Amino acid sequence: MDKPVIRVGIIGAGFVGSALVQLLTDSSRHAALLDAATGSIELVGVAVRDGSKPRPGIPAGILTTDAEALSAREDLDVLVEVVGGIEPARAYIESALRNGVSVVTANKALMADSGTALAQLAHEHGADLFYEAAVGGGIPILRALRSSLAGERINRVMGIVNGTTNFILSKMTSEGSDYAVALAEAQALGYAESDPTADVEAYDAAAKVQILSSLAFGTELVGEEISREGITRVRSIDVEFARRAGYVIKLLGVAERVGESGISRRVHPAMVPVDHPLASVHGAMNAVFVEGARSGPLMWLGQGAGGEPTATAVLGDVLDAARNRVSGRHDVPFTVDDTLHSFPAGELSSVFYISIDVLDRPGVLAAVAGIFGSNGVSIQSMEQSGFGDEARLSFLTHLAKTSDVEATVGDLAQLESVDSIGACIRVIDGGGQ
Amino acid sequence: MDKPVIRVGIIGAGFVGSALVQLLTDSSRHAALLDAATGSIELVGVAVRDGSKPRPGIPAGILTTDAEALSAREDLDVLVEVVGGIEPARAYIESALRNGVSVVTANKALMADSGTALAQLAHEHGADLFYEAAVGGGIPILRALRSSLAGERINRVMGIVNGTTNFILSKMTSEGSDYAVALAEAQALGYAESDPTADVEAYDAAAKVQILSSLAFGTELVGEEISREGITRVRSIDVEFARRAGYVIKLLGVAERVGESGISRRVHPAMVPVDHPLASVHGAMNAVFVEGARSGPLMWLGQGAGGEPTATAVLGDVLDAARNRVSGRHDVPFTVDDTLHSFPAGELSSVFYISIDVLDRPGVLAAVAGIFGSNGVSIQSMEQSGFGDEARLSFLTHLAKTSDVEATVGDLAQLESVDSIGACIRVIDGGGQ
Repeated sequence: MDKPVIRVGIIGAGFVGSALVQLLTDSSRHAALLDAATGSIELVGVAVRDGSKPRPGIPAGILTTDAEALSAREDLDVLVEVVGGIEPARAYIESALRNGVSVVTANKALMADSGTALAQLAHEHGADLFYEAAVGGGIPILRALRSSLAGERINRVMGIVNGTTNFILSKMTSEGSDYAVALAEAQALGYAESDPTADVEAYDAAAKVQILSSLAFGTELVGEEISREGITRVRSIDVEFARRAGYVIKLLGVAERVGESGISRRVHPAMVPVDHPLASVHGAMNAVFVEGARSGPLMWLGQGAGGEPTATAVLGDVLDAARNRVSGRHDVPFTVDDTLHSFPAGELSSVFYISIDVLDRPGVLAAVAGIFGSNGVSIQSMEQSGFGDEARLSFLTHLAKTSDVEATVGDLAQLESVDSIGACIRVIDGGGQ
Repeated sequence: MDKPVIRVGIIGAGFVGSALVQLLTDSSRHAALLDAATGSIELVGVAVRDGSKPRPGIPAGILTTDAEALSAREDLDVLVEVVGGIEPARAYIESALRNGVSVVTANKALMADSGTALAQLAHEHGADLFYEAAVGGGIPILRALRSSLAGERINRVMGIVNGTTNFILSKMTSEGSDYAVALAEAQALGYAESDPTADVEAYDAAAKVQILSSLAFGTELVGEEISREGITRVRSIDVEFARRAGYVIKLLGVAERVGESGISRRVHPAMVPVDHPLASVHGAMNAVFVEGARSGPLMWLGQGAGGEPTATAVLGDVLDAARNRVSGRHDVPFTVDDTLHSFPAGELSSVFYISIDVLDRPGVLAAVAGIFGSNGVSIQSMEQSGFGDEARLSFLTHLAKTSDVEATVGDLAQLESVDSIGACIRVIDGGGQ
């Protein structure tokens, strides 16, 4: 039987790109790929920056250093972009889409910045734009949101979507390490970069939250800033407090409905109950927890990074795009819901954990408690531990508005007897299990 | 813009069927459904057994008691079968498929029995046959295997795919209950039927393992018997032993590659390390853990039963089938891999936990240990606890062949001083986290 031929070009041959070439050229998987793609896949070009580097496994005849020319080829069916960054990745993708060539990308930064416009461009030219690998590496969560849960009203998406920070927090939990020690270990093992800002300050997770939100709720992907707090202020003492109280601290990316048309999108450390499925996501693993109106709680777990897992997700997209080419259709992009508005982060209520180091003097506790009270934040429990002239006060609040808690922290910082204020960590409720 | 109309019929209006009708007729979700289906969905018939029962929420004009006639309607696009059982469900499905009508079913028993033939029939008539809800209720695991992981070589699928038994084992774990007490509680809460055989003897889980295996590996769905052991022999003492050793006992459905062309499919209680993602699947939740060659470990978790979660999965299938109708294509069924063979359960090796009650007499331990030795089963650790004239011996073996362990148990049962033999529980290794 004659199978149509799907011509694929790849821009980028780093960990993901070269793992993908291997997957596409593995002869033992040929029949399975042919089946899944409903056509035979021909790799026609791989664009790399440095043409002089040896590229074992990539047929020499298809190597090129001219990514621009590859992205402009009209005879492509699918262009894969795995270089990352905003430019020139965007130019490559636009060029392909304008030719009606479907695009598969792993580029979370670009999708968070310009996803809506690119999806629209794809739609106008009858092409697909898939980006499964942009969130959760090898975890097929975006396709699930797009397809399996298409008819479902989703109320909340919560994810551990950054492996670096989860590795660091897991180390702090399992070994009692300080943040700096755990970060250094992550760097030594290659889980964290020498400049870890994008991970530990949650820029990476924030981009992923924007992408998840667009598919779950129909929020636009236009590079909006969302509420973002990293893990640099989480201390081993906080991790220990959490443990005693039956929680683990995780960096959570959250997108959820608030009221009829509000969507809150944010990233922050949170205390997760130990029996919540997200609490058992260890090391560099990722997981996304979805609460649907009818489906109930659902969770996806897997490796959030790494060349091979990510390449597997990219391959799934390539096969989807190939099937669509063969049947002459393309997927409708996520629908933007214009009635939604961004719910202000300060207006959200939560239970908070706050820990403060104070000089151990008479009247300090009364002064601190007074500040909570005057800001309308009511205290659920307090724990005091002394060391030398200092005391550490750890508070759990009742449900309190984020802006009130922020005002409390601001006032506390003015108190002479307050030495330092640790992280304000939101406490998450159970997982519906 | 004119959207094509997708005509849907539903056979069965129990929990799942009526929840589906609600989802399809919810006017607030109309736009989302239209978008996802790329056509407008018209519910043209709902077949019920008892026409005299009031059916709130189902428009009277489309109610019928003639399921046969509904399944034979040539003007349908999609027939949904949610009555369960082998016959007459099979006849309804065959009738629809022969007309080229796509079928969505939640019928695990029928799919495990005749899935290959039905998928073939669908393919011949250019129709789709989807059955997402047959495994894991609302968890979209089958679509992930079919689509996201289509290009991946899967090595092992392990699942907690029966909510009833997981509820019982969770109770035994969290409260130290005996099996009988936990079962009675499950029955009182409606998690277990008055005759719990299908659940506790793992028939239900076995059917699901067959379906998972067909999608992961390409084994046939022809009603084959697979190795099956339920939870009726698990005692609270075993659960407690597991806890002390860092494990929890779960009923696992497993399908895995053994060697080049062997596939082992089985259901049995197993000790799962507490830090394995499957260990944190509590209560009536379900989860499926997949190990791919490149993707690494992946897990899906969610509600394995219940009208609304299951209806959500069915709806996802209906929307998929609708999209395919609109674009005039159908999905290729899973491919049967003829080179695979069923790996004999007895030949598999594992670490086993075995616990025996013996009369506390001199020489008993030597006799028992001798039987292990003569069957080639080597002991890793032993724990003895006495109570009155009896002693309980709990063994962990080294890696041992299942048939050797079975022979050991057979010989032990012959010993006069052996009072009773508990469950043989396999010990599972870590989750790659």
